[in-house]
Amino acid sequence: MADFKVIENGHCTTPAGFLASGIVAGLKRSGAPDMALLVSATPAVAAGAFTQNAFAAAPVLLDKEILRRNRPVRAVLVNSGCANACTGELGMANARKMAAQAAETLGVAPHEVLVSSTGRIGVQLPMAKIVAGTKAAKAALSASGGADAARAIMTTDTRPKALAVSLTVGGREVRIGGMSKGAGMIAPHLKPLKALHATMLAYVTTDAAVTPGFLQDCLDASLDASFNRITVDGDTSTNDSFIALANGAAGNAPLDNASPDAAAFREAFCFVVGRLAREMVLDGEGVTRFVELVVSGAKDDAQARTCAEAIANSLLVKTAWFGADPNWGRILCAAGYSGAEINTEKTTLDYGDTPIVRGGMDAGVPEAEQARAINKREFQIRLDLGAGSGSFTIWTCDLSYEYVKINADYHT
Amino acid sequence: MADFKVIENGHCTTPAGFLASGIVAGLKRSGAPDMALLVSATPAVAAGAFTQNAFAAAPVLLDKEILRRNRPVRAVLVNSGCANACTGELGMANARKMAAQAAETLGVAPHEVLVSSTGRIGVQLPMAKIVAGTKAAKAALSASGGADAARAIMTTDTRPKALAVSLTVGGREVRIGGMSKGAGMIAPHLKPLKALHATMLAYVTTDAAVTPGFLQDCLDASLDASFNRITVDGDTSTNDSFIALANGAAGNAPLDNASPDAAAFREAFCFVVGRLAREMVLDGEGVTRFVELVVSGAKDDAQARTCAEAIANSLLVKTAWFGADPNWGRILCAAGYSGAEINTEKTTLDYGDTPIVRGGMDAGVPEAEQARAINKREFQIRLDLGAGSGSFTIWTCDLSYEYVKINADYHT
Repeated sequence: MADFKVIENGHCTTPAGFLASGIVAGLKRSGAPDMALLVSATPAVAAGAFTQNAFAAAPVLLDKEILRRNRPVRAVLVNSGCANACTGELGMANARKMAAQAAETLGVAPHEVLVSSTGRIGVQLPMAKIVAGTKAAKAALSASGGADAARAIMTTDTRPKALAVSLTVGGREVRIGGMSKGAGMIAPHLKPLKALHATMLAYVTTDAAVTPGFLQDCLDASLDASFNRITVDGDTSTNDSFIALANGAAGNAPLDNASPDAAAFREAFCFVVGRLAREMVLDGEGVTRFVELVVSGAKDDAQARTCAEAIANSLLVKTAWFGADPNWGRILCAAGYSGAEINTEKTTLDYGDTPIVRGGMDAGVPEAEQARAINKREFQIRLDLGAGSGSFTIWTCDLSYEYVKINADYHT
Repeated sequence: MADFKVIENGHCTTPAGFLASGIVAGLKRSGAPDMALLVSATPAVAAGAFTQNAFAAAPVLLDKEILRRNRPVRAVLVNSGCANACTGELGMANARKMAAQAAETLGVAPHEVLVSSTGRIGVQLPMAKIVAGTKAAKAALSASGGADAARAIMTTDTRPKALAVSLTVGGREVRIGGMSKGAGMIAPHLKPLKALHATMLAYVTTDAAVTPGFLQDCLDASLDASFNRITVDGDTSTNDSFIALANGAAGNAPLDNASPDAAAFREAFCFVVGRLAREMVLDGEGVTRFVELVVSGAKDDAQARTCAEAIANSLLVKTAWFGADPNWGRILCAAGYSGAEINTEKTTLDYGDTPIVRGGMDAGVPEAEQARAINKREFQIRLDLGAGSGSFTIWTCDLSYEYVKINADYHT
């Protein structure tokens, strides 16, 4: 069906004309890589979506300021180990310095550099390390550096998340690559240039030539099938950022919404972003199970979403999943307090192909069989509220001892 | 200050004219007590508040039906081990049978008996055990049975929650007693005859003579200083019930809102209910710390509450408390995504007497000192949003390994 193909071991420098690196700047106590630099050889069209948190971090404020200018961008500099959030005017000045330092090192203008930070809130960036790190990151840039960059943006992630696809657009082969990090504070509600949750960072690159409006449209379209439908813990970070860069190195005629290949490109773009979002849940802190929860039969899509979020964020539901406890009452209970309209006598629930609730009551399947349906690494749950035709799908996970352990003692 | 005094080892049969029992009806696999009966020797004025969950359990629906009649009540029969929720018409018929059985056994009318259930959702009541249990509970009734009753309503609670106070009203000594159970699914939003959350059950008895309107007013007033400000896990149960009975055995002239002692009685009533709510949090599943969170400086009280609930239900905040990690960024982050208006440059945060955030930034207190302020069984956190004069206080707790353990494998 799809017009694109996945490139083995692809990442954000698989598209032509991108270089990247991931290095140790010394911000993480662990000594792990903590700075990534992504550079386009030529000015790139940029689009973004950011957290709606009232305490949005300084780099988020700066990136929004830059992207609002609607001009090409050359690079993104990312540090993990320090969020530069709740850091006041000094934090804002440091974010600007970080961008200016990268611009100087790369020989571009300061407003051509975006910056992202992730890590502990309330701590000022150690600027000497940032400056030295930026130079080291520049020196390490390579066309295969996307893999290192994906590793350097990690915090509590257990593995880097990167991929790339290729497709033909206007007779030219174009590539779309991406990388992301997630793990904790994952429950984005991104709005283009407005919102996201979780400390999630995601970057998509493409060598396709696109108009700025089309790139932003692709990014917006991808949100609803990706970051806006995932939740690990319901927490929305101060730093969530999702940035896309398109440098046109593939040499195609610039794509816009009217191009014959617009839909195919958008589909491939959404696939990359959807995969990054899914991987983010699968690699969520302490996650042992991935759950696709489909709520249907709601009065409207908004109520379906409200209901899906209540279930996906219920501690009782998430801990039951961890234990493969089929206790469906907790799911109906969470739906019941979500505020969504419910026809309780028509409510149905299924775990995969196993009917669990019919007419708001136990469907009669033996408990052992119910448990088998969810004692899996991945499963689907479908809840129909019997009250209308609204629906929403959310990707979520269980809550394990490990999540508590990681978060009861987190210091990057 | 207070005009009442706490009666040592008091409970819900400390007020005159009440009998109670707690027995083993065989509903819990563990063999622990699982049925409680509370009886007033004479018809008692009754008031209540119940869950707003769309899947409200059959006993909740029945009790609301009975209380809407506004007539005296004689008894409350409670079972643990089975919630009788999501049980359809048969569940409703069983709730009626349970009440009718108790009425027959006690020689009163069916509409004079309230019923409550707590335990697993989606399972029908084992009626033979309910019938036999009701008879055994009647046989075990005693004036000191309040302690047994408090034990029989427990599910994952580790200890019974009961108390009683006395005060002088119209020249007569009157007593107010109470018992409750909580542990999981605790985040009530009770509205009189409308709402509550958590599987929380609470019963207050008094031998004062009161008008029905005054009793309901006392109950309503007590909610906002008790069950409506607690949250363990943010889950609202299908079965939450809070019932008050007043039998007038003390012989005082009936109290109403115009009585000289109305305020003193209301204060004592609120004290009893507040204590039950507080105990519910302290005995929440796996709880190791009790946190009083005061949000002030909000645009209005509603926004203060929204903000307080976001913080109190944030997994990242709760796990940090468990680990005594002073990571204040998580608190500001949760406030930031709550939707409450915030003046980020004026935000302040204090852990007890320790200043943590000033002007939205680190107040400069060494981390070890910050940690000491919360490495306690109980502490207060104060957050001022700098945006107005609204405030709200919530009682909450940490999230421990034990919570996950209890809920990953819960079968009563």
